[in-house]
Amino acid sequence: MDSKNFSNPLSLRDIRITDDFWKKEMELVRTEVIPYQWNALNDNVPGAAPSFCMKNYRLAGELNARRRQDPSWQQPVWTTGIFNLVPEDINNREERFYGFLFQDTDFTKWVEAVAYSLTQHPDPELEKLADDAIDVVCAAQLENGYLDTFYIINDQSKIFSNLRDNHELYCFGHLTEGAVAYYEATGKDKLLKAACRYADYIDSFFGPEEGKCKGYPGHEIAEMALVRLYHATGNDRYLALSRFFIDERGKQPYYFDTEVDHPFEAKGENPPLRHFYHQAHLPVREQKEATGHAVRAVYLYSGMADIARLTQDESLLGACETLWNNITTQKMYITGGIGSTHLGEAFTFNYDLPNDTAYAETCASIGLVFFARRMLQIKADARYANVMERALFNGVLSGMALDGKSFFYVNPLEVLPKACHEDERKFHVKPIRQKWFGCACCPPNIARLLSSVASYAFTENEDTLFVHLYVGSELTKKVGDNTVTISITSEFPYAGKASVRISAPEPTGMTLALRLPDWAEDYSIKGAEGASSAETRDGYLYLTSTWSGETVISLDFPMRPRIIAANPAVREDAGKVAVACGPMIYCLEEADNGADLHLLSLNCAEPDFRVCPDAILGAPAIKAAGSRRKPQEVSDTSLYHEYRAPETEACTLTFLPYYMWNNRGEGEMTVWVREG
Amino acid sequence: MDSKNFSNPLSLRDIRITDDFWKKEMELVRTEVIPYQWNALNDNVPGAAPSFCMKNYRLAGELNARRRQDPSWQQPVWTTGIFNLVPEDINNREERFYGFLFQDTDFTKWVEAVAYSLTQHPDPELEKLADDAIDVVCAAQLENGYLDTFYIINDQSKIFSNLRDNHELYCFGHLTEGAVAYYEATGKDKLLKAACRYADYIDSFFGPEEGKCKGYPGHEIAEMALVRLYHATGNDRYLALSRFFIDERGKQPYYFDTEVDHPFEAKGENPPLRHFYHQAHLPVREQKEATGHAVRAVYLYSGMADIARLTQDESLLGACETLWNNITTQKMYITGGIGSTHLGEAFTFNYDLPNDTAYAETCASIGLVFFARRMLQIKADARYANVMERALFNGVLSGMALDGKSFFYVNPLEVLPKACHEDERKFHVKPIRQKWFGCACCPPNIARLLSSVASYAFTENEDTLFVHLYVGSELTKKVGDNTVTISITSEFPYAGKASVRISAPEPTGMTLALRLPDWAEDYSIKGAEGASSAETRDGYLYLTSTWSGETVISLDFPMRPRIIAANPAVREDAGKVAVACGPMIYCLEEADNGADLHLLSLNCAEPDFRVCPDAILGAPAIKAAGSRRKPQEVSDTSLYHEYRAPETEACTLTFLPYYMWNNRGEGEMTVWVREG
Repeated sequence: MDSKNFSNPLSLRDIRITDDFWKKEMELVRTEVIPYQWNALNDNVPGAAPSFCMKNYRLAGELNARRRQDPSWQQPVWTTGIFNLVPEDINNREERFYGFLFQDTDFTKWVEAVAYSLTQHPDPELEKLADDAIDVVCAAQLENGYLDTFYIINDQSKIFSNLRDNHELYCFGHLTEGAVAYYEATGKDKLLKAACRYADYIDSFFGPEEGKCKGYPGHEIAEMALVRLYHATGNDRYLALSRFFIDERGKQPYYFDTEVDHPFEAKGENPPLRHFYHQAHLPVREQKEATGHAVRAVYLYSGMADIARLTQDESLLGACETLWNNITTQKMYITGGIGSTHLGEAFTFNYDLPNDTAYAETCASIGLVFFARRMLQIKADARYANVMERALFNGVLSGMALDGKSFFYVNPLEVLPKACHEDERKFHVKPIRQKWFGCACCPPNIARLLSSVASYAFTENEDTLFVHLYVGSELTKKVGDNTVTISITSEFPYAGKASVRISAPEPTGMTLALRLPDWAEDYSIKGAEGASSAETRDGYLYLTSTWSGETVISLDFPMRPRIIAANPAVREDAGKVAVACGPMIYCLEEADNGADLHLLSLNCAEPDFRVCPDAILGAPAIKAAGSRRKPQEVSDTSLYHEYRAPETEACTLTFLPYYMWNNRGEGEMTVWVREG
Repeated sequence: MDSKNFSNPLSLRDIRITDDFWKKEMELVRTEVIPYQWNALNDNVPGAAPSFCMKNYRLAGELNARRRQDPSWQQPVWTTGIFNLVPEDINNREERFYGFLFQDTDFTKWVEAVAYSLTQHPDPELEKLADDAIDVVCAAQLENGYLDTFYIINDQSKIFSNLRDNHELYCFGHLTEGAVAYYEATGKDKLLKAACRYADYIDSFFGPEEGKCKGYPGHEIAEMALVRLYHATGNDRYLALSRFFIDERGKQPYYFDTEVDHPFEAKGENPPLRHFYHQAHLPVREQKEATGHAVRAVYLYSGMADIARLTQDESLLGACETLWNNITTQKMYITGGIGSTHLGEAFTFNYDLPNDTAYAETCASIGLVFFARRMLQIKADARYANVMERALFNGVLSGMALDGKSFFYVNPLEVLPKACHEDERKFHVKPIRQKWFGCACCPPNIARLLSSVASYAFTENEDTLFVHLYVGSELTKKVGDNTVTISITSEFPYAGKASVRISAPEPTGMTLALRLPDWAEDYSIKGAEGASSAETRDGYLYLTSTWSGETVISLDFPMRPRIIAANPAVREDAGKVAVACGPMIYCLEEADNGADLHLLSLNCAEPDFRVCPDAILGAPAIKAAGSRRKPQEVSDTSLYHEYRAPETEACTLTFLPYYMWNNRGEGEMTVWVREG
């Protein structure tokens, strides 16, 4: 590991996104998702189950006030579960905690998305809304810094007694991410200070020192959140605490086995099996295979990558690389979706990638983006950026409708709506996006990722700007005392042209590291002739120069439709192919190709691809030569008949970008089509 | 419906099975399954969970005796569930009911198999064992005739209070089937009388008369059992009671909704959906599609067919035909397996026949055989016999190992052992047969079916003997005052030769109805020249003659390996084929073809089939020309790569009969192979 290669995201305040594609997505988040979310967490969405999130914070604050007024007051204790049903008449209710026990994160994810959005689109009204909500949230904090309304309202004697199931450290992680983002976006530190006080309390409770608790999060995220808090505050304790959580994980005897309060039975008798789900079966440095709940897993690995970099821990980096390779070469859908089974929203065994029962949770792809960016921060290797781009443009974006008003939690690669409605094994696969979810993790997660896409597109170190994704932007970079302005234009994702304009009022020595996407066989570049050095390494073109005045570099990555096959070990894709163009994976929909997509084949020898710009919902369609198998002339009543060579008729297949599927009503969809 | 076409099974006492193939299976049942079962239901299988079946009967008998001695004695009341865990030390336990609430059927299924076995192989020792057990069972019966140890032991006030879940009428049905079989086999009527007394009690409780309960079985079987009781006793009340259960089913308001004691929540809000599982969503004559628990369904339809015949009810027959067609043309695996999903062991939607997650419970295929035979009794139509044969030789026989010592509950058509071990979605698919099951329905059900196979091979009416299956046998048929002896020899299932020798000491007018199997394109017959009429109808050859002395008719149904394709609506079989020969469906196993069966294709244009007799475990193997897809020369680490025309190498595929799979250890298996 070479710290010279390290890099960090730029402050979003130093970037203005101008990209047509991404700007549109971010505007959806700003105008649709954020307001909807606000209404949701304030129980103001007619017809939707109330979140109770803000009501919980308010109640916790009221209880705090009551305790302060009367220190002898005995707060009642309630018995609660993972989900605490909200009564029908929410105004006529007991003073209790309602909703999922991680309901606090409805707010903390929202405020994170708000923060990013404010950097791109200042909005005093929205900021006021957030400030007022932060006041409510901070009033819920206990004197000692603890801030989780589930336990504050229910039973403070049980704090940190069930780390495995009860998401306290998960809620802390989201609070921290939101607080840091809001501070970085607005400079306001009220929520940041609350997060620090909570972190300090956690730090006093957990740690390697004798007498301290040796637990770690049941749902990871605190690991990477503490690193952000360390970056924002410079307080080493937060870094050490994150490292403690990572180092402690999976040690024997298992911490989770020492907890008394597990309402759900463990699944297996075998202790390592029992802890797979939480990635706690082995010390993290010994983990070779991504296991268990996919979101938990990639959140953990993201934190591990952060700590590996900041502590220059080679063994931890080795584990990250092994796990990265396992995911991306054995457990990832072509869309960047991960987590093949809905049972536990989890990874299964290598090469098990069923298309029609896929889970591929939106949040898991988002977590894969987190992990990729952190690996890139250690070393700019296009292997990471290629996967990051794949997940972002496909498995993540598919999670949100084109109008920003409905969402997928699950992102299958093949859908027969009838099966989703009638076959319980596929009930988790929704054939149409949903307005919101009781367990509302994916929509706010999309919101916070899309509104901070620049944090993934670019990283920097002292003298290098890394362009991982060609996202049209204007940004400034400081090099020594100089400030360089860089303007990027991009026709991605539907054309491969991009330009980088460097404006250096003072001559400034700087390296531009430009990613060469894996899907482009070659590329052409103009305007880089003046660079003092041009070097290609790990899928990046490094242009070093003393830039002066204006330089415009034009890049062209030719895009053509490609036919993709899966590793033969993927049984579900045997004899099938997919179509991709540039970073986008394409799919077939019933709306364009009729029903019974399983009877279609792509003419792989002569696909005769034609790209038709703006053909479907403003995006290009790819037309290709294919054939449709004719139903054999057998009696209607025959389920099995003697084989005859299949009869087919030529037809034109129409593909559209996968992420756009299901924006025209319910219908069949498939990414993989039979090779013909 | 024409009652002239009706037929009935012959008494097993008038048949001696001589068939090589079936004799072997029946001997396995006699020498392995029946003794094992006896040990199981007496808790004498080391290492297996105790059944507690006979202990429950004994305890019920003791409680009865105590009540008789002291009428004022208050029997304690216990709360119990579907399964009542047996304590580790079974000798040091409370006096309670243990095991599944339908544990009584462990005995009643056993005694049925014993009865059939005794007809073929008299065994005074076994008969004594059964007689003694029958004494124990009969001692458990209440004064009023009620006989279900779960309620006798636990709480008699709850009798018939939860018909939907608690299997009382199911236990009654199995008791009755066992009692009738034992009476018919041995002439002993003690158990039959107990069944009659119980039936009389049920008849006093349920019925159309005012004040009587309007319930019906939650798990069907009583319907067909009551018909057998009617045949054995001539008592019309039993026929009427069966008809009542069938007519009442599915009426609104739903009877099951009126029960108070349902420990499991109903699945849907929609009442018809809620009752799909029990085939109680609609009156049976209005049911068009086979739904819910597959075993329950075919048991019901079998009872419906019985009642349709005995009451000449055209509308009921119409429903049977509709449901038969739905199952066999839209919901049946090529093996005769039914019930595609393990969730509820149930039917799913039309053409949904996944191979690797199949349920295809052995008992469901057995129930399909029951249904088929009853449809044949109404009209000899080879459509029914073809399916019966398919299920029997494939989906049923696969349930038992070749040594009779282990069993499949689930019969998948494609198995990757790794997936069964590691993927919770396939935990129901066992890659290796099991010794026994806690819910021990399949092994005893196989035992009773195989030992009574002659009841399915032949039916008769006054002047006609129907040969539905060519099972080598010697049997006698009475025609008027004459007795004709008929000897059948058969080389089935691996060769299509059979002969029928008719010995008529007195000239006797009789029709032989010989099934022409659907898998034989043509056939040759010799020795039938003397028949006064030879007519082909509905897949049967009717030979009518006044038979005199000895006549030998030889039949030859040429068998050749066939390639079979599924209806294109079956998505999971698209682009795939199966191999069959005669009645047997074949499969590929890893033991003969190596791992990664999904990379193999059958050369459908020139399969170059060779049948190799006695090649695998005494059965023929079919060798065929195929190809194996080579792993592409891509880097090991690539999960997705640009498509290139696939490279294949020629290879020989080795198929073996499906029912024999997994008799050589764990490995991959598939019925459907890609067409190449």
